Amino acid sequence: MTKTIHIGLCGLGTVGSGVVRILQDHRDQIKYKLGCEVSIKKILVSDIHKKRDINVIGSELTTDPKSIIQDPDIDIIIEVMGGIEKTYQLMKEAILHHKHIVTANKDVMALYGQELLPLAKDKEVDVFYEASVAGGIPILRALSDGLASDKIQKMMGIVNGTTNFILTKMADEQRPFGPVLEEAQQLGYAEADPSSDVDGLDAARKMTLLANLAFKTTLELSDVQVKGIRSITQEDLTFAAKLGYTIKLIGIAEVNDEGKVEVSVEPTLLPNEHPLAQVKNEYNAVYVHGEAVGETMFYGPGAGGLPTATSIVSDVMEAVKNVRLGINGHAYVIPQYKKKLKTDKEKFMKFFIRMEVDDTAGTFQKLTNVFTGEQVSFAKILQLPSNKNQTAEIVMVTHSVSREQLRKSLEQIMDLSVVKKVISYYRVDGEE
Amino acid sequence: MTKTIHIGLCGLGTVGSGVVRILQDHRDQIKYKLGCEVSIKKILVSDIHKKRDINVIGSELTTDPKSIIQDPDIDIIIEVMGGIEKTYQLMKEAILHHKHIVTANKDVMALYGQELLPLAKDKEVDVFYEASVAGGIPILRALSDGLASDKIQKMMGIVNGTTNFILTKMADEQRPFGPVLEEAQQLGYAEADPSSDVDGLDAARKMTLLANLAFKTTLELSDVQVKGIRSITQEDLTFAAKLGYTIKLIGIAEVNDEGKVEVSVEPTLLPNEHPLAQVKNEYNAVYVHGEAVGETMFYGPGAGGLPTATSIVSDVMEAVKNVRLGINGHAYVIPQYKKKLKTDKEKFMKFFIRMEVDDTAGTFQKLTNVFTGEQVSFAKILQLPSNKNQTAEIVMVTHSVSREQLRKSLEQIMDLSVVKKVISYYRVDGEE
Repeated sequence: MTKTIHIGLCGLGTVGSGVVRILQDHRDQIKYKLGCEVSIKKILVSDIHKKRDINVIGSELTTDPKSIIQDPDIDIIIEVMGGIEKTYQLMKEAILHHKHIVTANKDVMALYGQELLPLAKDKEVDVFYEASVAGGIPILRALSDGLASDKIQKMMGIVNGTTNFILTKMADEQRPFGPVLEEAQQLGYAEADPSSDVDGLDAARKMTLLANLAFKTTLELSDVQVKGIRSITQEDLTFAAKLGYTIKLIGIAEVNDEGKVEVSVEPTLLPNEHPLAQVKNEYNAVYVHGEAVGETMFYGPGAGGLPTATSIVSDVMEAVKNVRLGINGHAYVIPQYKKKLKTDKEKFMKFFIRMEVDDTAGTFQKLTNVFTGEQVSFAKILQLPSNKNQTAEIVMVTHSVSREQLRKSLEQIMDLSVVKKVISYYRVDGEE
Repeated sequence: MTKTIHIGLCGLGTVGSGVVRILQDHRDQIKYKLGCEVSIKKILVSDIHKKRDINVIGSELTTDPKSIIQDPDIDIIIEVMGGIEKTYQLMKEAILHHKHIVTANKDVMALYGQELLPLAKDKEVDVFYEASVAGGIPILRALSDGLASDKIQKMMGIVNGTTNFILTKMADEQRPFGPVLEEAQQLGYAEADPSSDVDGLDAARKMTLLANLAFKTTLELSDVQVKGIRSITQEDLTFAAKLGYTIKLIGIAEVNDEGKVEVSVEPTLLPNEHPLAQVKNEYNAVYVHGEAVGETMFYGPGAGGLPTATSIVSDVMEAVKNVRLGINGHAYVIPQYKKKLKTDKEKFMKFFIRMEVDDTAGTFQKLTNVFTGEQVSFAKILQLPSNKNQTAEIVMVTHSVSREQLRKSLEQIMDLSVVKKVISYYRVDGEE
């Protein structure tokens, strides 16, 4: 009853320090809630002698991961050191040594989750990764516990704080992508190499984790259709606004009645009054549509030291409970459905298309001939004189069409001599 | 390890039947997640012979609550029968017989929670009531677990589905309160006696439960400032819309740095682009602002048989885990702070005021004299000719003032001979 649970903490950056602080500040409360003590026995750091503004008395600092993984006293390993390959190796080793793992590492989980999770189940240990998906939002818990007795049909959300910060600034302050990215980097919202965020990969990793949990299947990162935000221009935002839309980087995961799945991350136009259109700056929000519960939404800070540390501590408490219940490994949601992906013929949505065309009689008819041939019809059309000589700019929003219909139409459109350029096209969603 | 947990289910209406169905459909999954079986031993009904479209084979139907409360085999009692006094007695008796309780009854919890919760802690049993606050939203769990290591500063939300349905219809279809209420009653969204909902009491009960949990104090229903939606007219909605606002029934609970609390439920004008302004129909949403985590929001169906039943089952699973961990009663959030309430002098907010005045020279000066004397200044003023002879209608939005400043101003305003009538006034919130 009064056994102490020993923790090995790997990483002592912002999140790691936050975890140490929360466990210290809430020691009594945690003991009361769990019926046992939780104590950090060892901490993996890269430099033992570095000066730190956190009290780690009672914990042994080490630079040797093995001394943590192989310590028979340690029950749970908290991984907040980042990295991919080495970290994956460390986690795998730890599982093989029967350690439970709590991690904030979405990269490792998206790339190696399909290997690590069944391995952990096999070894009867827990792998919890709530903090990896959306810092302050308990969405994994909700999917695996609260909504577990429901059939999830669709999820849709903003799961990357950096790109949402950039898009919010671009729209509100009418500034182009480049300078806003620089500002985000200076503020620490974007990394020196921003590609993982701005090219949509980070969001795609999170959508993979969410979709596998919600649909109980085994999607990989490469199953996600990804498009980032680099090519979004001020003109795109302006034209979208003229039609009543806001552009957000939206992740969507859907399963149909036949169990066929589609997952995508791409810039998407949402009606201004759509709740996700109102999610600003670095905030994240995810809609979950379940058969029984209906629509629920989770909203909160997408990242940040304290939200992430809070989430880690919740996971640790869950793991401790499971240790004491003897049900470790049971939290793992076993994939029940073989992966079945929709083809582009089966993916239906609306699109926003911008193109520059000759401003001459007959142009419009040539365009409509192509679209009609592919059975693509339009909900909104806007034609404006372009700044350039004798050209016009056309902005269209289609009715629901398949990705294949769109692709075929655009191929033919680009071959028309009256079309100078297809400037951009984006998904449109959130309308009834 | 393979002990069975026995349940006594009190009530077999929509929610009760939903609970039976979920426990049947997910039997294996629940057993796997808990490491033990959960079985409904007895069900309390008012008529044993009533025909039901649910399979209750294996459970004993009874009309005698004592046979459940005093059954030594039964560990957990699920209370979904409604009512107040008798139900409170039943719950208290059950606690004294060392039964854990899972309830959807916000009335009993708001009125008697301060007595039942410490009693339960004393008897080392759990009382879980997630389903009582907002059917499909796991907000109590979030406050008592996930956000437990944070200091909650403010909560703001829509916590009553009936009034939100009515206000949505009134605004979208420009119909008055009466007929919309009738429609809501026909659709089953409002009860035959709608006063608990439309007068704001139901929302006030929920805000009491949320505030006590978040601020760890002992507020009572009578500490909540309550105003319902009966008096909201189509003109109020129209004038609010002209100024860019939507009217919602909003519950707000705040604590300041000195630990002084204010809790209110009242019609409130929110900017149209505020996320809560977008919450439609019977949906609920609650913003939680914590010191560490920042802003999080929970959104979902406010009620409904299946969401509520899903929430009940989650609570049951939590109680079962606690039984097996031997930590029942520990989930109770012990009040740590003596109740301290703000006075009306200390409650600051903006107000929207509509009045009918003489359309003569000098009227406006008389008004501004009064307001200036009370140091009330305005952000927005709109004057329109009224339909009536020689009167005008004035709509004002104040800057932040205290409730006392407002009251004193309005008292003097009503004494002015040029003022025919103060038509309405509402809180304004959600602006920076």
